[in-house]
Amino acid sequence: MAKDKKVERITDMDADFAQWYTDVVTRAELIDYSGVKGFYVLRPYGYAIWENIQAELDRRFKETGHENVSMPLLIPESLLQKEKDHVEGFAPECAWVTYGGAEELEERLCIRPTSETLFCEHWARTVESWRDLPKLYNQWCSVLRWEKSTRPFLRHREFLWQEGHTLHATAEEAIEETERMLGVYAELCENYLAMPVTKGLKTDREKFAGAERTYTIECMMHDGKALQNGTSHYFGDGFARAFGITFSDKNNTLQYPHETSWGYATRSIGGVIMTHGDNSGLVLPPGVAPVQAVVVPVASHKPGVLERARELCETLKRAGLRAKTDESDNSPGWKFAEHEMRGVPVRLELGPRDIEGGKCVAVRRADGAKIEIPLEGAAEGVRAILKEAHGIMFARAKARLDENTRVASSLDEVKSIIAEKGGFIVTPWCGDEACEIRMKEDAGVTSRCIPFGQERVGDVCPACGRTADKTVVWGVAY
Amino acid sequence: MAKDKKVERITDMDADFAQWYTDVVTRAELIDYSGVKGFYVLRPYGYAIWENIQAELDRRFKETGHENVSMPLLIPESLLQKEKDHVEGFAPECAWVTYGGAEELEERLCIRPTSETLFCEHWARTVESWRDLPKLYNQWCSVLRWEKSTRPFLRHREFLWQEGHTLHATAEEAIEETERMLGVYAELCENYLAMPVTKGLKTDREKFAGAERTYTIECMMHDGKALQNGTSHYFGDGFARAFGITFSDKNNTLQYPHETSWGYATRSIGGVIMTHGDNSGLVLPPGVAPVQAVVVPVASHKPGVLERARELCETLKRAGLRAKTDESDNSPGWKFAEHEMRGVPVRLELGPRDIEGGKCVAVRRADGAKIEIPLEGAAEGVRAILKEAHGIMFARAKARLDENTRVASSLDEVKSIIAEKGGFIVTPWCGDEACEIRMKEDAGVTSRCIPFGQERVGDVCPACGRTADKTVVWGVAY
Repeated sequence: MAKDKKVERITDMDADFAQWYTDVVTRAELIDYSGVKGFYVLRPYGYAIWENIQAELDRRFKETGHENVSMPLLIPESLLQKEKDHVEGFAPECAWVTYGGAEELEERLCIRPTSETLFCEHWARTVESWRDLPKLYNQWCSVLRWEKSTRPFLRHREFLWQEGHTLHATAEEAIEETERMLGVYAELCENYLAMPVTKGLKTDREKFAGAERTYTIECMMHDGKALQNGTSHYFGDGFARAFGITFSDKNNTLQYPHETSWGYATRSIGGVIMTHGDNSGLVLPPGVAPVQAVVVPVASHKPGVLERARELCETLKRAGLRAKTDESDNSPGWKFAEHEMRGVPVRLELGPRDIEGGKCVAVRRADGAKIEIPLEGAAEGVRAILKEAHGIMFARAKARLDENTRVASSLDEVKSIIAEKGGFIVTPWCGDEACEIRMKEDAGVTSRCIPFGQERVGDVCPACGRTADKTVVWGVAY
Repeated sequence: MAKDKKVERITDMDADFAQWYTDVVTRAELIDYSGVKGFYVLRPYGYAIWENIQAELDRRFKETGHENVSMPLLIPESLLQKEKDHVEGFAPECAWVTYGGAEELEERLCIRPTSETLFCEHWARTVESWRDLPKLYNQWCSVLRWEKSTRPFLRHREFLWQEGHTLHATAEEAIEETERMLGVYAELCENYLAMPVTKGLKTDREKFAGAERTYTIECMMHDGKALQNGTSHYFGDGFARAFGITFSDKNNTLQYPHETSWGYATRSIGGVIMTHGDNSGLVLPPGVAPVQAVVVPVASHKPGVLERARELCETLKRAGLRAKTDESDNSPGWKFAEHEMRGVPVRLELGPRDIEGGKCVAVRRADGAKIEIPLEGAAEGVRAILKEAHGIMFARAKARLDENTRVASSLDEVKSIIAEKGGFIVTPWCGDEACEIRMKEDAGVTSRCIPFGQERVGDVCPACGRTADKTVVWGVAY
């Protein structure tokens, strides 16, 4: 009989959250480091989470009329430079290709950090009339940004994402699109990742390079820090003017179209880990878990146990659940720990006595609850438990968000909250960028967003003491 | 009332096949050129074909136990150099990144031309025991090869593909995998793309850099030229030795595992175009057509016509068919030509009289046949026509392959066949690379493969006159 693989302990999350995070990411086999800093291998288990997120988003994109395309990986330097704000934002982070084979290139090419310029170039060539609008495009790809400090999922030099790019006849339509796609991200986050979101507008200081408006969804992690988890940008007609994209309207007048872009990346997986994980490892939301239920046969050498376990697994699969049986020769105890580490939402323990009694024991990863379910109709039982698991996870994250969102009225108060408690801080804001800088320098917080449905929390900007007509959520961000 | 868009004529395929090809690719809106030579935009219609191929392949990969992963885009030069044959084959075609932001890199990084080295690096770190094997991995991505001459789909500097990489305890298992995946490609080609394939082994001269064996499927295009349309490689333990990948077997002895890789790319779309297309444009196989049936309302201003057309379309969609209604204000005649250009397998014409008669007219793109089908049960009718369309297309391509595959027994015969008729030429071969070079230099053909099920066509190598115990298929390849 083979020995169990060594069970490696992970760091306590309250003792060292950053190390706990790294331990979970590697121990659950989500990611492997590569030989180049900031470039990671997404291992099968990590990539399968992304595939599930992809499938959900892609379906929503198509339902809202978007089409997938594939744009080139490389952008000529001259093309990147066409929109002034955009190039300023991205050029410092570009990886540059200077040789093709043995030949030095006449113009260096950057690996796309984002593809606005490529979409614009294509549209400048192909859009002519109002009949060609709107263009509702998306692409799934990876992008490169040469970051100084990197962390698995949260900050890669190369990361996987989708970037939607759309072109509209009017500003109204483009703004509507920008808001619609933020809504798609928010819905995915809340209903599939069990992560409550704070939706809002970025301040000018925090918005995307070249955008008129950037909308964001912000999530609170276990340690109280913020994760920007999806953004949607309205560009006005700035890019269209810079790239010479025009269309003739119904009156045969040339017009500049209005543009949007929106992106969602693998960093959301980092968010899932830091929102739901615990000291036993990952806790995956049922909506995106690669394995939603694992069947662990107990005393599997006894006649009929393995067969009945496989049968149970097949029943779940036929019902559309993602299930597997752990048939490895490790001990049940080791298997329990392993699947907890991997965050499998439901573990089904099945031994000879369970089979005799026509039931199995379901253990819910989200709260450790043990629930007996009848083998007859097991799929419905598991489905109900998964639904409850989602509810428990969402409610817990929401409670944390609510408990750790605090109103402050002075800079001192902001500083003491951040130092002692962390979390999100809500204050009035005068709208001056200088005050944002002050908040950053004095308290170490950045504006996360100007939330939708502006609730007034005071009239005075805590940074300058002037009248404030905006409400801003502040925090320390990943 | 708006005027029709201009209907652009395409070049006659028999007058200038290359120009016909370019015309179809652009006119059917599959591809747009970008500002960088050899980098193309896959437009929605072109990308949707790829998505359908992807979905079919991905399902087959998962059914055969493979898992998707994501490897880094960049490979350090020192890593690429670890396997001698491999680097010799690919280094001349690499695009090199030399700057990250403003900083010159200490070691230049190449954009992956293929990812064997990255998989090996990952496995060297993570594989320890026989329990870790096999590893059955795949990734969907783009790769770069700095080619001198480029053509849409057929030869890009950047192309989309999937690359499968697997690691096995034994040579037998790895060879079985290599052959299995070639079978998956062949099945996809024949059953979804309606392209008959010639399966076989590449000669040493034509095999993949670093492989012990390369298997291939070769397809014949309309002009008689060959397209290599999917390859599968067996590496033995060469890469494992070069990268130091070992595992302890059941007796606790360290062993080198055996490796495979296999790839299928967007060039297959070029193959679809050149196999099935005609002077009216694309002809898409129903299995991968983004739109399988288009409903064209005739006299759509008449009451009830548009409503009934939409209803018909919905019926087809509910039955799982990819259908759409053309509601544009172009004339029916323009629409007919447009959907023919785009290769939509079935066009359904629906006018007031059809509605009165409870039927519609289906026009099959593959052969132009007009078939009346009852509106009641339209989905079954369309499904049957699509199935017939596939059969017609496959049979036509198979007949072309058979008619244009000729046995030759002398070099002169090879030369005259290639000069006068083209197509595939089958000859005996002695096995000497010098004879392959002679065939290339004298007749302009390369060995396409040593086909499976070796039928003897003679005993004498046409290039050298010596005894030959192999049969080889020769051709001019894209």
